[in-house]
Amino acid sequence: MISWCDLYKVVSAMVPLYVALGLGYGSVRWWKIFTPEQCDAINRLVALFTIPFFTFDFTVRTNPYTMNYRFITADAMSKIVIILALVAWAKWYKKGSYAWSLTCFSLSTLNNTLVVGVPLVMAMYGKWAQDLVVQLSVVQSIVWNATLLFGLELRKALNNVDTMKETQVKDVEAIVESDSKISLLPLMKVVWLKLARNPNVYASVLGITWSLIANRWHIEMPTVVEGSILIISKAGAGTAMFSMGLFMALQEKAIACGPSLTVLGMILRFIVGPAVTTLGAFVIGLRGNVLRLAIIQAALPQSIASFIFAKEYGLHAEVLSTAVIFGTLVSLPVLIGYFIVIGFI
Amino acid sequence: MISWCDLYKVVSAMVPLYVALGLGYGSVRWWKIFTPEQCDAINRLVALFTIPFFTFDFTVRTNPYTMNYRFITADAMSKIVIILALVAWAKWYKKGSYAWSLTCFSLSTLNNTLVVGVPLVMAMYGKWAQDLVVQLSVVQSIVWNATLLFGLELRKALNNVDTMKETQVKDVEAIVESDSKISLLPLMKVVWLKLARNPNVYASVLGITWSLIANRWHIEMPTVVEGSILIISKAGAGTAMFSMGLFMALQEKAIACGPSLTVLGMILRFIVGPAVTTLGAFVIGLRGNVLRLAIIQAALPQSIASFIFAKEYGLHAEVLSTAVIFGTLVSLPVLIGYFIVIGFI
Repeated sequence: MISWCDLYKVVSAMVPLYVALGLGYGSVRWWKIFTPEQCDAINRLVALFTIPFFTFDFTVRTNPYTMNYRFITADAMSKIVIILALVAWAKWYKKGSYAWSLTCFSLSTLNNTLVVGVPLVMAMYGKWAQDLVVQLSVVQSIVWNATLLFGLELRKALNNVDTMKETQVKDVEAIVESDSKISLLPLMKVVWLKLARNPNVYASVLGITWSLIANRWHIEMPTVVEGSILIISKAGAGTAMFSMGLFMALQEKAIACGPSLTVLGMILRFIVGPAVTTLGAFVIGLRGNVLRLAIIQAALPQSIASFIFAKEYGLHAEVLSTAVIFGTLVSLPVLIGYFIVIGFI
Repeated sequence: MISWCDLYKVVSAMVPLYVALGLGYGSVRWWKIFTPEQCDAINRLVALFTIPFFTFDFTVRTNPYTMNYRFITADAMSKIVIILALVAWAKWYKKGSYAWSLTCFSLSTLNNTLVVGVPLVMAMYGKWAQDLVVQLSVVQSIVWNATLLFGLELRKALNNVDTMKETQVKDVEAIVESDSKISLLPLMKVVWLKLARNPNVYASVLGITWSLIANRWHIEMPTVVEGSILIISKAGAGTAMFSMGLFMALQEKAIACGPSLTVLGMILRFIVGPAVTTLGAFVIGLRGNVLRLAIIQAALPQSIASFIFAKEYGLHAEVLSTAVIFGTLVSLPVLIGYFIVIGFI
């Protein structure tokens, strides 16, 4: 059973995120402080500095030797089940589409683990829960984002082949980069290069590397280095939510993709994702608060990175934008609802 | 005597500020991440959001009923001595100028109390020192910034009168707002309106008001409100130093005003200011670590607000810009030098 005191703690942890978001929104919509180009500057500050430092800061605090691998496996299993289902749907179902499979993967599996997740699960279940969510965030940023990027690159390559066929290039040689099977190695290279250019991936990889070394040989980070990381990382949560507010204010409509796709997005995010994760976690043997945590983390709002990828590849960006905006707004009551309900199980 | 351990603590508190500053500088000069217009957006984020929240956050934590009024009086006395000397110089000394008096007042008395001062004195002398510096920052933002603004407005009004006389306006009526003495009341109104539009002054006044109420009736701030302030205020130090780095990178020369004026600025900031403060503090009876703290806080780098005022009123902005840039850079060794030397007294 959840007490009023527990609930207040959770609300107190979440409301500040929305205050920062509201300030960002208001500074464009109501107070006209920033032009769209200026908003871009703040997004850059967040994407290139505050969030990578924030990610690094949390990652170095996890001990990879004491990671809860059962928890990570449960999460991975549920994501693999979703991938298999989506691939099967795209391949064999008549109305199935590879493009929608990718978007549905984003919508049901990639969540805002650090900025929203960390303070939320800390308030709900305490420090151990925060550690587990940080571990998931490392896996998400390295493995699952890479999976999505790989899928997007594959689709781009397939599209190129289709386009060449359609335009019926006469050049014999050309027909001979197009009919051959797409080779996976160059695709992988593109994906890894893209990831290597992403500061957040850097931050995760560097963080986990340092953590592996430091925990193996019991090295402590010098105070001066720790302080230098902290001074920027402390700005992470506030500036990230502020910049999400700017993003919301710049969209013409909060629901860019129409109501039915919005509902689809919300169902995938808040019902399908958590449901499959619950199943995976239960099968793998998680019980009690760890099981509850697995469910909550699966119902976190949409990850912003997934929108950025969608925009970059021109694939249902308006659906992802709605999922980020609308999802973040409704996640407060939804997550509190989940917290109360799963308190009974 | 200062131990190596004390010194390391101070360096560890200061270096992160310079790391944030370096990232800001590099992002314009080396990595070309931000255009000048975009830098303006980050400055606005800092000036309108992170620093006011930062100021408010520190101000509400001081208890005005236990303020060290002797410490504040010592600081005020030394500032009044400087003002009197500068006014006398402008009035009676042949080469004296009212404009330079204002600039010298800025250079010798207005310092970066919160962003640099708080972590520095915390590392040097601990929590009590931080509290005293925060108290000074409240007085500075309300009283001393107002004094400077008043001086700048007075000069503007006097200049207008002079201009009108020079252009020999024929209109009889006009000669009759020009020859009359400048009335102080409208001037005061302009100054207060300017201050009331300054978010940092808001933050100080609101902070001290809340603090007066809360400490009188023992009211605690609700966790959710505290968290909402913290999420933005935590970004204060990092983003402020980052934005100072952007500012440095945008200047064509680090020493915009030439070497002799730079030396003047540095002497006023790091020698005259601390010397007069030491005198004031000693006369008022401060001894031991409180006296040391009075000296250190007077040798903090130049306040950024004083540059902003100089720019707004077109009065020696290049001197103040140099004082902020050069002063912030040299303050690390200077302050550590002071710390060691006054450790012996």
